[in-house]
Amino acid sequence: MFHIDNFDLTIATTSGTDILDLTAAVTEKVLQLEYEGGILTLFISGSTAALTTIEFETGVINDLRAALERLVPSDLDYEHDKRWQDGNGYSHVRAALLKPSLSIPIVSGRLMLGTWQQIVLLDFDNRPRQRLIRGQIMGIKPSAG
Amino acid sequence: MFHIDNFDLTIATTSGTDILDLTAAVTEKVLQLEYEGGILTLFISGSTAALTTIEFETGVINDLRAALERLVPSDLDYEHDKRWQDGNGYSHVRAALLKPSLSIPIVSGRLMLGTWQQIVLLDFDNRPRQRLIRGQIMGIKPSAG
Amino acid sequence: MFHIDNFDLTIATTSGTDILDLTAAVTEKVLQLEYEGGILTLFISGSTAALTTIEFETGVINDLRAALERLVPSDLDYEHDKRWQDGNGYSHVRAALLKPSLSIPIVSGRLMLGTWQQIVLLDFDNRPRQRLIRGQIMGIKPSAG
Repeated sequence: MFHIDNFDLTIATTSGTDILDLTAAVTEKVLQLEYEGGILTLFISGSTAALTTIEFETGVINDLRAALERLVPSDLDYEHDKRWQDGNGYSHVRAALLKPSLSIPIVSGRLMLGTWQQIVLLDFDNRPRQRLIRGQIMGIKPSAG
Repeated sequence: MFHIDNFDLTIATTSGTDILDLTAAVTEKVLQLEYEGGILTLFISGSTAALTTIEFETGVINDLRAALERLVPSDLDYEHDKRWQDGNGYSHVRAALLKPSLSIPIVSGRLMLGTWQQIVLLDFDNRPRQRLIRGQIMGIKPSAG
Repeated sequence: MFHIDNFDLTIATTSGTDILDLTAAVTEKVLQLEYEGGILTLFISGSTAALTTIEFETGVINDLRAALERLVPSDLDYEHDKRWQDGNGYSHVRAALLKPSLSIPIVSGRLMLGTWQQIVLLDFDNRPRQRLIRGQIMGIKPSAG
């Protein structure tokens, strides 16, 4: 039978560029909801954060943070900051480039992540936030016996 | 009951890097189609444009445009331009980096966008275009009473 | 009737930054599975590769490869490489920025790609790999006559 389920993950972040592993929390939801197959859609509600996958290993997490700082430096002059004085123009630009959604197939009850591939929240904002990640699964659950 | 609906948005763009707010047009379609829950998939058919979300505020829109110009400059030499003389090699590269699709969950009839998070078309091409954005919703509509 | 089908594509890659056209293989699967409408989700299982669309033309493929080398150079010092000595820190960073998923609507049995828009695998790793791309279609097939 076809079903849809929604879940929210709420994550507290800090003022730096946080890169946080969501894999365990998302996997737990997928198992609880007992889908045999379908699509997991993850979406971050907010304009200064994004979602992607990466090997969650301290070295490469630091490498990603350094790359983001080179690509969209936090210390340039941003028009957004001149107008709104909140100093997070770079956060908005990074979020727009990295995008808010991620889609992962579920097959035989399992997310199709690679062995070294974790789901991460990238929080680019310059102040602590309560982040709301929307999860939705659409697909097939086994019929009741 | 499960349903699928498709809709097209046609948008006229100019020769610069246009960043255009699609939120009102997309929201109107979502409301008209009366889904209770499901996934909205947006896809830009074309190889010199992309879709993302951003706070649609003039300052940060200019900041994003400036960042794209720094990251993938329009005035470098591109092989594409040597072969095809159309001068939009940078547009193709930007579109490949930003990607054509965006997925947004619908819950209780509403797109799960944040308050300051708008859906935007990024048109990177160097000439005016008629852009075709494909929208698809798959999900549940309330049964007829 | 609503259905889900899954398929895998296995692709052998080389040690450079491979950019490989998946359009024919994906289109063949879509035709074989006989969906009238739905969503195609493509996902690369692995943390050093990504999926996007581009006009598959040698000039612009080289331009994209050159842009990636400028944006995330392979010859910088990466912490990942100091810890793990595998020399592919830049591959992980590129994959995280480009993201592993791509969603394409199917309407009237056809993928909504533009005329010059091909689906590509970007393999950033510094050694040959057997790549596994997961495909999933969810949607409607015509009822049996």
